[in-house]
Amino acid sequence: PGKAKAEVIGFAKSVRKLGQDDPRRITHSLKVGLALTVVSFIYYLRPLYKSFGEAGIWAVLTVVVIFEFTVGGTLSKSFNRGLATLLAGALGLGAQYLASLSGEKGQPFVLGIFVFLLAAASTFTRFFPRIKARYDYGVLIFILTFSMVSVSGYRVEELVVLASQRLSTILVGAAICIVVSICICPVWAGENLHNSAASNMENLASYLEGFGGEYFQSGEGSNSDRSFLQGYKKVLNSKPTEDTMANLARWEPGHGRFGFRHPWKQYLKIGALSRQCAYQIEILNGYIKSDNQVPLEFRCKIQESCTQISAECGKALKSLASAIKTMTIPSSTNVHVENSKTAVKDLQISLKAVSLEHDQELLAILPGATVASILVEIVISVEKISESVHE
Amino acid sequence: PGKAKAEVIGFAKSVRKLGQDDPRRITHSLKVGLALTVVSFIYYLRPLYKSFGEAGIWAVLTVVVIFEFTVGGTLSKSFNRGLATLLAGALGLGAQYLASLSGEKGQPFVLGIFVFLLAAASTFTRFFPRIKARYDYGVLIFILTFSMVSVSGYRVEELVVLASQRLSTILVGAAICIVVSICICPVWAGENLHNSAASNMENLASYLEGFGGEYFQSGEGSNSDRSFLQGYKKVLNSKPTEDTMANLARWEPGHGRFGFRHPWKQYLKIGALSRQCAYQIEILNGYIKSDNQVPLEFRCKIQESCTQISAECGKALKSLASAIKTMTIPSSTNVHVENSKTAVKDLQISLKAVSLEHDQELLAILPGATVASILVEIVISVEKISESVHE
Repeated sequence: PGKAKAEVIGFAKSVRKLGQDDPRRITHSLKVGLALTVVSFIYYLRPLYKSFGEAGIWAVLTVVVIFEFTVGGTLSKSFNRGLATLLAGALGLGAQYLASLSGEKGQPFVLGIFVFLLAAASTFTRFFPRIKARYDYGVLIFILTFSMVSVSGYRVEELVVLASQRLSTILVGAAICIVVSICICPVWAGENLHNSAASNMENLASYLEGFGGEYFQSGEGSNSDRSFLQGYKKVLNSKPTEDTMANLARWEPGHGRFGFRHPWKQYLKIGALSRQCAYQIEILNGYIKSDNQVPLEFRCKIQESCTQISAECGKALKSLASAIKTMTIPSSTNVHVENSKTAVKDLQISLKAVSLEHDQELLAILPGATVASILVEIVISVEKISESVHE
Repeated sequence: PGKAKAEVIGFAKSVRKLGQDDPRRITHSLKVGLALTVVSFIYYLRPLYKSFGEAGIWAVLTVVVIFEFTVGGTLSKSFNRGLATLLAGALGLGAQYLASLSGEKGQPFVLGIFVFLLAAASTFTRFFPRIKARYDYGVLIFILTFSMVSVSGYRVEELVVLASQRLSTILVGAAICIVVSICICPVWAGENLHNSAASNMENLASYLEGFGGEYFQSGEGSNSDRSFLQGYKKVLNSKPTEDTMANLARWEPGHGRFGFRHPWKQYLKIGALSRQCAYQIEILNGYIKSDNQVPLEFRCKIQESCTQISAECGKALKSLASAIKTMTIPSSTNVHVENSKTAVKDLQISLKAVSLEHDQELLAILPGATVASILVEIVISVEKISESVHE
């Protein structure tokens, strides 16, 4: 029983952590519950039941399948589902009509051929990257509705009634989803994208601000909090999430500080540059672990300017991140970029002064020199990010 | 009309390219068409129609929704759907029964509360990363079935009949999907994962083999095919695809050269190391573009050993890739790794010989030195990859 108790406590802790990490998860779960309860009532209460008929169950299905975490996701799925049902329904009716021309015996075969051709062709379109990104769900519903309508075996007149009923229940379900999703603590994909751009930069900045101290430390008191050294790893694999968010953000109406046609693509550009910078940091990070064998004399020579470069780059990124957050024109960034460039010049001067005459070998100082060289590249990356934020 | 014609031709070309890039896309589309036609016939032909009833439409729905590109995807969705329907159906019946105890008037409210609680709790579990990766679809179907059963308003006895009908149609749909997906040109997620590990290494290898010539070239004849310089970029963002494949591969039975409990996780480890190497190449690649200002004298000193290191690393990766493909123990890899280590020693000797006395400044040779230093790191990465392939 002790073990079981420990497991329950562990589970409770992980639930709490999930909720604390992002409280929107809790509100989202409650929102789904609410939307589903509302739509159930519509279906369950008798007077309403009569007007929708059996098809009311499709409203429940619609809510469960359509309700996504972000407003953009919900809107995109609603749109996809509605349009695909309409199109496929019309096509299905047409197919039924054509098949009925071929007589009682031929009908199933003609319909079978239609279903086969349409399903194969539609499935193939799902491999187009652009369709996959935006209309994947729509194509799925298209195949589904078409095959359901064309094999249902009803007469065309019945089908028209059935189809209009189903369409109206889908509309009811989608409307409830959209209202709940927008009106109660909405989660905007665009805002997520915006915040993730800022938080990525902050992660990079924390690393760079701490890098100097970490790399040049004398080795004591090093067991303090080092989580800032891990944050940048999230940035390395940020691409797929950002792509999805940008796709969903296009569906969202204007909200808060974002207009309807906010330049979401710009965030992808910023994201790519941030990842570039994260790759450089990943390489730098390899040097923190491995070397203390660089001669102290050389380390001292580059210590000040390298620490300076790294710290100023970090500050520049921090100010860019906060500029993104507040959507103002970044004011102090240029100062920090300029400072880091000055530090690069200082570094170059110290490097010029290095002579390899007495007991210092190029080989020995190489790791340190590489760190310096990568830091210079990071300055360039940061400058590019800064330019692209200004756009 | 000329423009429309050009567009049609452009579209036809892109369709052809999609098909040529991966012919399995075409067979997959045909397989979906086939499975759907088969299930439509079961539903449409009258004798069979009677035994399944209206619920036969759920077989069509199941096929459309469950049929995935890979066998693992299809199996995982079938399993999720089947189990979730069973569980949620049973729970839904229980909820109906409990609600019926509270009398005619209280029933809708009790049911509403049940639906709300269960939907909210289940939606929350979808945020657990492990559940999201493996059982996301199952949880969705669970919510769906539970709310449909509990709000359907039928009496319990009717529901049992309905539920068993629906379950049997789902089984029929799933069985057709699984048979078609496994028997006709199967696409195994595990095999995909395996091949992607090999092709990632090949991409890295092509880059490294070409790097020496590209970096140290005198600048002429450079307009030849350079696509090998781009291949490694695919590796940078390979993580999400590999994670998905590894998750799906766990569902697959033994096939071809892979046993049922093939160590798929090992591929994720190899993938992570390959990405590490790709990050290093990304940094190297920055230097190809930017510098020719490194003094020629220094370049000549490091040219031979650097070209050697890079080429041997490339060869080592190539041999690892082909060893993965043929699933043999890599034979020549160690030779190449040793060669590259020898080359590193040569490089170190040449670097030791560098003196900064006459007109060579550390600053000027820094980019070249950095390239050399990163190449040394790449040797370490390649060695790690090699070790992990051996495991």
